[in-house]
Amino acid sequence: MSLLVVGSIAYDSVETPFGRVEDALGGAAAHFSAAATFFTKVKLVGVVGEDYDLTHLDFLKARGADLAGVTCAKGRTFRWKGRYGFNLNEAETLDTQLGVFADFKPELPKAYRKSPYVFLANIHPALQLDVLKQVEKPKFTAMDTMNFWIQGERAALEKTLAAVDMVVINEGEARQLSGEYNLIRAAQAILSYGPTRLVIKRGEYGALLFTKDHIFASPAYPLESVFDPTGAGDSFAGGLMGHLARTGNLSNESLRMAIVLGSVMASFHVEDFSMDRNKRLVPEEIQARFRAFRALTQFDDLTLPGE
Amino acid sequence: MSLLVVGSIAYDSVETPFGRVEDALGGAAAHFSAAATFFTKVKLVGVVGEDYDLTHLDFLKARGADLAGVTCAKGRTFRWKGRYGFNLNEAETLDTQLGVFADFKPELPKAYRKSPYVFLANIHPALQLDVLKQVEKPKFTAMDTMNFWIQGERAALEKTLAAVDMVVINEGEARQLSGEYNLIRAAQAILSYGPTRLVIKRGEYGALLFTKDHIFASPAYPLESVFDPTGAGDSFAGGLMGHLARTGNLSNESLRMAIVLGSVMASFHVEDFSMDRNKRLVPEEIQARFRAFRALTQFDDLTLPGE
Repeated sequence: MSLLVVGSIAYDSVETPFGRVEDALGGAAAHFSAAATFFTKVKLVGVVGEDYDLTHLDFLKARGADLAGVTCAKGRTFRWKGRYGFNLNEAETLDTQLGVFADFKPELPKAYRKSPYVFLANIHPALQLDVLKQVEKPKFTAMDTMNFWIQGERAALEKTLAAVDMVVINEGEARQLSGEYNLIRAAQAILSYGPTRLVIKRGEYGALLFTKDHIFASPAYPLESVFDPTGAGDSFAGGLMGHLARTGNLSNESLRMAIVLGSVMASFHVEDFSMDRNKRLVPEEIQARFRAFRALTQFDDLTLPGE
Repeated sequence: MSLLVVGSIAYDSVETPFGRVEDALGGAAAHFSAAATFFTKVKLVGVVGEDYDLTHLDFLKARGADLAGVTCAKGRTFRWKGRYGFNLNEAETLDTQLGVFADFKPELPKAYRKSPYVFLANIHPALQLDVLKQVEKPKFTAMDTMNFWIQGERAALEKTLAAVDMVVINEGEARQLSGEYNLIRAAQAILSYGPTRLVIKRGEYGALLFTKDHIFASPAYPLESVFDPTGAGDSFAGGLMGHLARTGNLSNESLRMAIVLGSVMASFHVEDFSMDRNKRLVPEEIQARFRAFRALTQFDDLTLPGE
């Protein structure tokens, strides 16, 4: 089933201990789409400036993505500049130039309004809600957000939270949003705002899935070389939502597999700058890493004390 | 098979956001034994001062532990005073009084010299090596260490590392010991020093097992209430080594289960101050939490893209 994603398309300039790139393909919705297009038909909504080379997105088109929702506006494309130290979990933002993204008011093409699966990448929560209202009876909706909105747009954010099925945020955001340090309590608080599923991303430490009566914990795939974590969280969300949209299966078992597939996509994503690894990726590699992930995490039940 | 542990026995004074204790039962070897006695016969080597109430250790005796190796020396028992904030992964040491532990020169009772399983808790690496030399052909040996020895006693530490089968340390120690930030590279470096297995403890993020050609990743058991993490790492090591000694099975499958059982023991340990939770623990609870751990981490292989 098709998967609608709304969010940023950007040029990223990134410095890590392993190298640097200038004006590389970036933006949450673009990273998300790069992962999700391996799983299902993606409909992308975003805005770029006059300086954007739209052929950058040809690889998504080649994977069946619908780019009718990508509009070109007068001005410059959203630019982000950041730096990572050896602790690749934490980015230092050096510069943000919103450009045309500052006036982004997503309007869905008519063909997009029946999308059964919807992912609202990190944009103003009021815009997220506005997008949701444009979709006719979606089957499953999910959202990301960030510290900026949690702190500054609490009321709008709570409305959006009440309208989605799933939240996909990182550990720090979960703590900030809930006011709870302990993640089980944080999850209980966030689920009380409305969503029935919460996914907490923990970078190199993996991810947690919470529903009202069920928890799943997944480690991250250990990698020897991590070049650039920019977009890893969006890539994770793309694999996660991609699997759900592809299978149409929203059971806890399917959600668990979706988390692992999100981790698989993120693990490839960080192996090179920007989306370069994703562009070289083939489904057989996804299959093989998923199996390696199982091998990494499974354990037997031999005998226990007292038995 | 019996399991020898050598290390500290202490009085801990601990402050967390949830309460405080004064002069509570502590010390790496004591925490380790509290966990390991659920699995196998433990032989404990340590030193206490004249101020120590030996009836504190009666609960270990009741679980079959041999305390012939616990000596009482003139002076005061080792005391540690520490504080934790909401981030329970990091302790702030407020005071350390070595007392009789400063002159600890472990000498094994004759009956201890044939112990097949040996755990060298965190003491001076030269003392660890000296203990190893006193044991006749052990089947499996493991050690812990800390930043203090990594920085100040490198040469002695490398000799001990070359003499053990397994190292059990935390993430920061693995990075410091290897000079590598990436944990796969850190593991390769540490395994090159001699041990064939490395376990990296990551607190609330779980644990990793490395052998030359195999990795296992385990999350930690998510808990709603963590009261006191003091000794959690030792409790983890106690469950881990306890399982190996109990089963005599050193296969990768058994090591994986040992990591999970270590995590299970640590998860109970932190639910109350000192060893209070451990003292109330029964084998059925260990069995149940192990099963819950499986339920937490398992996932199915439904279908993958491209299949």
